[in-house]
Amino acid sequence: MSELRQDPTNKVWVIIAPERAKRPQQESKRRRVDNLPSWDASCPFCVGNESQTPDETFRLPVSGEAWEVRVVPNRFAALALDGDSTMHEDGPFFRRRAGVGVHEVIIESPSHNTPMALMTYEQVEKVLIAYQARYSALKKNRQLKFITIFKNHGWASGTSLVHPHSQLVATPIIATYYHRKFDIAHDYYADIGRCLYCDLLAEELQKGERIVAETEQFVVLHPYASRVPWETWIIPKRHSASFGLFPAAHLHKLAGVLKDTLYCLYWGLDNPAFNYVIDTSTTADEDDPYYHWHIRILPRTTMIAGFEIGSGIYITTALPEQTASLMKQVAHSCSEDECASFNQGS
Amino acid sequence: MSELRQDPTNKVWVIIAPERAKRPQQESKRRRVDNLPSWDASCPFCVGNESQTPDETFRLPVSGEAWEVRVVPNRFAALALDGDSTMHEDGPFFRRRAGVGVHEVIIESPSHNTPMALMTYEQVEKVLIAYQARYSALKKNRQLKFITIFKNHGWASGTSLVHPHSQLVATPIIATYYHRKFDIAHDYYADIGRCLYCDLLAEELQKGERIVAETEQFVVLHPYASRVPWETWIIPKRHSASFGLFPAAHLHKLAGVLKDTLYCLYWGLDNPAFNYVIDTSTTADEDDPYYHWHIRILPRTTMIAGFEIGSGIYITTALPEQTASLMKQVAHSCSEDECASFNQGS
Repeated sequence: MSELRQDPTNKVWVIIAPERAKRPQQESKRRRVDNLPSWDASCPFCVGNESQTPDETFRLPVSGEAWEVRVVPNRFAALALDGDSTMHEDGPFFRRRAGVGVHEVIIESPSHNTPMALMTYEQVEKVLIAYQARYSALKKNRQLKFITIFKNHGWASGTSLVHPHSQLVATPIIATYYHRKFDIAHDYYADIGRCLYCDLLAEELQKGERIVAETEQFVVLHPYASRVPWETWIIPKRHSASFGLFPAAHLHKLAGVLKDTLYCLYWGLDNPAFNYVIDTSTTADEDDPYYHWHIRILPRTTMIAGFEIGSGIYITTALPEQTASLMKQVAHSCSEDECASFNQGS
Repeated sequence: MSELRQDPTNKVWVIIAPERAKRPQQESKRRRVDNLPSWDASCPFCVGNESQTPDETFRLPVSGEAWEVRVVPNRFAALALDGDSTMHEDGPFFRRRAGVGVHEVIIESPSHNTPMALMTYEQVEKVLIAYQARYSALKKNRQLKFITIFKNHGWASGTSLVHPHSQLVATPIIATYYHRKFDIAHDYYADIGRCLYCDLLAEELQKGERIVAETEQFVVLHPYASRVPWETWIIPKRHSASFGLFPAAHLHKLAGVLKDTLYCLYWGLDNPAFNYVIDTSTTADEDDPYYHWHIRILPRTTMIAGFEIGSGIYITTALPEQTASLMKQVAHSCSEDECASFNQGS
């Protein structure tokens, strides 16, 4: 028997139907990208091809010939800062404005073939430093209300280039999806006087069955109403609405947890395609008590199909209690070196 | 310069960034499924393999050995009618209920390799008759609040079997996405006293630039804030909240428009993967004045990536004014026989 579950943070319903995992496939949909070279002459993100990208907005190290992380404007940007951001109403229905905003690429490593799951902890920390540096610089522009930092890994995730990279999009508008999430968190706070996510975290830790790992500062869990099999959230224990306010001195702790989470997915699911997003407050509401930033990872082991697109209800085949338990086993089977952050709880 | 546009029916924002269509791809993501046989011994939907599916809930013709359309329960159903539909609250956050509902498959043709785009008008009409027969039968069960009829075509759409088929899912819950859409339409009606979609249709017909075809009973258009390139809506001119109430005697007119729309997509875009969904009222609100059923077709020529999943904002590369104009050219280049419905306006 399947189950209908509602996500308490956005009220979205999912149908969890484990039986459907057994249905036949007339052709495999898996697409493997293996044996990539460590350097590719035709890749615009590889060392030596820096002239193929626009000028850096950030880099590490700050000076010197060799770079470890580069941030550059997206050459095929969905948004740009020039132009005026006035709303145009073309009749009663058609509301538009110029695509004012910022679209940048974070090139995570000089190495063409090292996914984040296999990077050193230090390298992942550098990527996070770049995220936060660009977030902090861009939030000063009051036109930019919302900054989304996300990553597409693997073809099935929608990426167009394999070289490890993430993206940042800063927009003058806030999506209806986030309006709803903020409203729900705000209503909970107005009603109960506490943060929805802090309370949810306490409940999840007490139940324990969906927890993959707990460290000093973070909890890694598979959410109650996972939209896709192996959906994973990384939630900081310390309350804060914004990733932008997370202490830079603790970014190495986040790097540890993020890398270990991706490492376990990599080995447990054979390098799945995935998307992750840093889910955070608007730039104007970073200090608000009601929101709580977190990272959402959505493996793309199944396709988003017509029912999901048409109905807004997700059908998934895996119970998060089971996937969390399996992922915990993957973590436990790692040596201490491999999953240092999970296994030492640090 | 890109544009931000808001869909007036659901308030979702899209970024239309034509420049992004030019970005490089390190590997093609297209997957072709050509040269399928007309019969496949291993296909559970092919003639002779009827015993591999559960018993029919509907078929055409009603009796006789040979069938033209079959409806069967999904063998790997996401939902089932047994079980009790009480809501369970497991603590303050975790709301669930048994997966009560119906999940059926509409096998559209005995032919393994004839997509709807290439079927006869009569065959498409039979599929629509099957849709409506099952809709009407299931709406009598008052547990079932919402009935979604949809189709996944091509691997990129999330289908697991190639034999032409659609699906029907009936649920005891209404997705938040539809709650919002109904609320927006309801507010418009409460405010203006008219149907949002009727007014939108009048405005689109007056502007004309996003219209692909207009027939006696239907308008085919590319919506103002298309989420994906070539998104297409088929809207009946006559106001009605529910597909379930569309006159059976006119289903051949809908079959003509649906087939011609898919035919133009097939030839214009080289048999793209797509999803379509019949967007309709709840079963309880079929007579309400504020909603207006329609069909939404979403070609899957691009991937849904991390930004869309993370932010709820869609980035697309095509202006609907341009794609509508191109699709109109495809229709005009057809012979009268091929696109009879579009070209005769019937």
